[in-house]
Amino acid sequence: VTSRVVELVDATRRGDRVALARLLSVVENGGRDARDAVAALGPLAAVAGIVGITGAPGAGKSSLTAALIARVRATGDRVAVLAIDPTSAFTGGAILGDRVRMQAHDTDDGVFIRSMATRGHHGGLTRATPQAVAVLEAAGYPWVLLETVGVGQVEVAVAGAADTVLVVVNPGWGDGVQANKAGLLEIGDVFVVNKADRDGVAETRRDLEAMLTLSRARGEDWQPPVIETVAINGRGIEELWRAIESHREHLAASGEQARRVEARARQEVRGIVLEQLTAEADIACAGPKFEELAARVVARELDPYAAADELRGAMQKGAQ
Amino acid sequence: VTSRVVELVDATRRGDRVALARLLSVVENGGRDARDAVAALGPLAAVAGIVGITGAPGAGKSSLTAALIARVRATGDRVAVLAIDPTSAFTGGAILGDRVRMQAHDTDDGVFIRSMATRGHHGGLTRATPQAVAVLEAAGYPWVLLETVGVGQVEVAVAGAADTVLVVVNPGWGDGVQANKAGLLEIGDVFVVNKADRDGVAETRRDLEAMLTLSRARGEDWQPPVIETVAINGRGIEELWRAIESHREHLAASGEQARRVEARARQEVRGIVLEQLTAEADIACAGPKFEELAARVVARELDPYAAADELRGAMQKGAQ
Repeated sequence: VTSRVVELVDATRRGDRVALARLLSVVENGGRDARDAVAALGPLAAVAGIVGITGAPGAGKSSLTAALIARVRATGDRVAVLAIDPTSAFTGGAILGDRVRMQAHDTDDGVFIRSMATRGHHGGLTRATPQAVAVLEAAGYPWVLLETVGVGQVEVAVAGAADTVLVVVNPGWGDGVQANKAGLLEIGDVFVVNKADRDGVAETRRDLEAMLTLSRARGEDWQPPVIETVAINGRGIEELWRAIESHREHLAASGEQARRVEARARQEVRGIVLEQLTAEADIACAGPKFEELAARVVARELDPYAAADELRGAMQKGAQ
Repeated sequence: VTSRVVELVDATRRGDRVALARLLSVVENGGRDARDAVAALGPLAAVAGIVGITGAPGAGKSSLTAALIARVRATGDRVAVLAIDPTSAFTGGAILGDRVRMQAHDTDDGVFIRSMATRGHHGGLTRATPQAVAVLEAAGYPWVLLETVGVGQVEVAVAGAADTVLVVVNPGWGDGVQANKAGLLEIGDVFVVNKADRDGVAETRRDLEAMLTLSRARGEDWQPPVIETVAINGRGIEELWRAIESHREHLAASGEQARRVEARARQEVRGIVLEQLTAEADIACAGPKFEELAARVVARELDPYAAADELRGAMQKGAQ
């Protein structure tokens, strides 16, 4: 374990915000330093409440996150936010607009907000999300909000890392059917109809409740509630917070919490393996051998499977 | 090459729709049969026009697809649609609602509509999408529409497999900023503001045009147009079709078409390698060794990286 990473972990435990930010970069970037950080952090305390906030772009997740920050701060508790941004597969850029919208909390020392870009490597987010949560726990935050941007692979990482997953929809937003199509019904512990001052709330609630009755509930004894909010003016936030607390009580009382800790360990190990394998594939697909094989596929001298066989043969030789 | 797959390819070339449907299942499922199908299909003719239709859930992609089907059929040409559905990471189920909405075309022999579920294996969709397009080309369809459901990894596969990518947004849908956040700006060749009978069209157009000026255009000489449509009543569809045809002319004239064929070959080979590697990881993460390692991580006897090392060691041993 490098002394630099050990120092960052120690400083993070002492409440140093600069060290915390650096340590989050370390786990985000992966590789040897992330490995050292996990070793230095030691086992997860698993005492923080981890709330995932997911839903389609434009549903108001950032406004809801801001309202939940205010709700937590009203109790005096500190809160950390991890905003999981999509990285465009094409440019590698992440958008920071959501952070701007949370600036109202930027001068509050009890609030820590961080954007984490999803890495291109498959498994990277799956691995980095629980590791980043472990860093925030080490820094002593009793609440961690995981906000996602977009729908897709990201939800899997968030659902795996959170204790309570909020799925945010809007009235008339494809009548809730879209939430089902996007695979969000299975991962939600609490459903939020945000922008509930618009038309179509009753229909969206009815659709959600009907589909939730049909679909498998995430925890067997837990019936996910549907809460109406208007995040920008705070309407429904108190009720939403009570639902989050009820869900946490359910997790503890039912033994589901222990099952989620086990699932998280499985997910992290799987994420590490996938990330390592795809990183090796990415390296192989950036080299001269790959270019040669692809040119032969284009020239119709080789079919794509034969090209893949040759590339994997070269990868295995390189690994030995 | 198995005789069954060769027979399916022959029957598909003769116009047998049942064989076509079976052959699509073969490439979708991957493995040895997909490999044989690619060998039997031979090199891609690359004569069909392939139009990708992407955007957030609820933007009206299915309605737009239905309108484009009608536009193609008006010329007498046949058209195939591949609707790429999300498979929930948790249940493995795909939703077929979009097919229902296209039923108006179900009795037309010149239209072939097929849903393809995205497979859990990373790379699976990247591999299967160009292979399915090759099957539809072999069946003689001069136009193939690739409609996606949801935003995320799916877009990468569609952008890689299509000649012309339509990005569908709505007026006021997060002011077009959401399209940027979701990484859609870089992949779009034509932008469609659908539901343009609603408020906010001018703002959305302005936002898109401003961001497009800032962002790298996909083809260097091509300035992506922004087209307003109301898919459900056909408004703007003629203008959209002209934009698609202009883009195809640009691809041919600029040499960009050849560059896309090369990129597609690279993507298919990479997809095959990733799919094989992640399938092997999935097998390893379903076995007793993985369960034993995960239990030791939960018991804090082993850190997640050490568990990953042990698992990869077991995988390599198994491969030898």
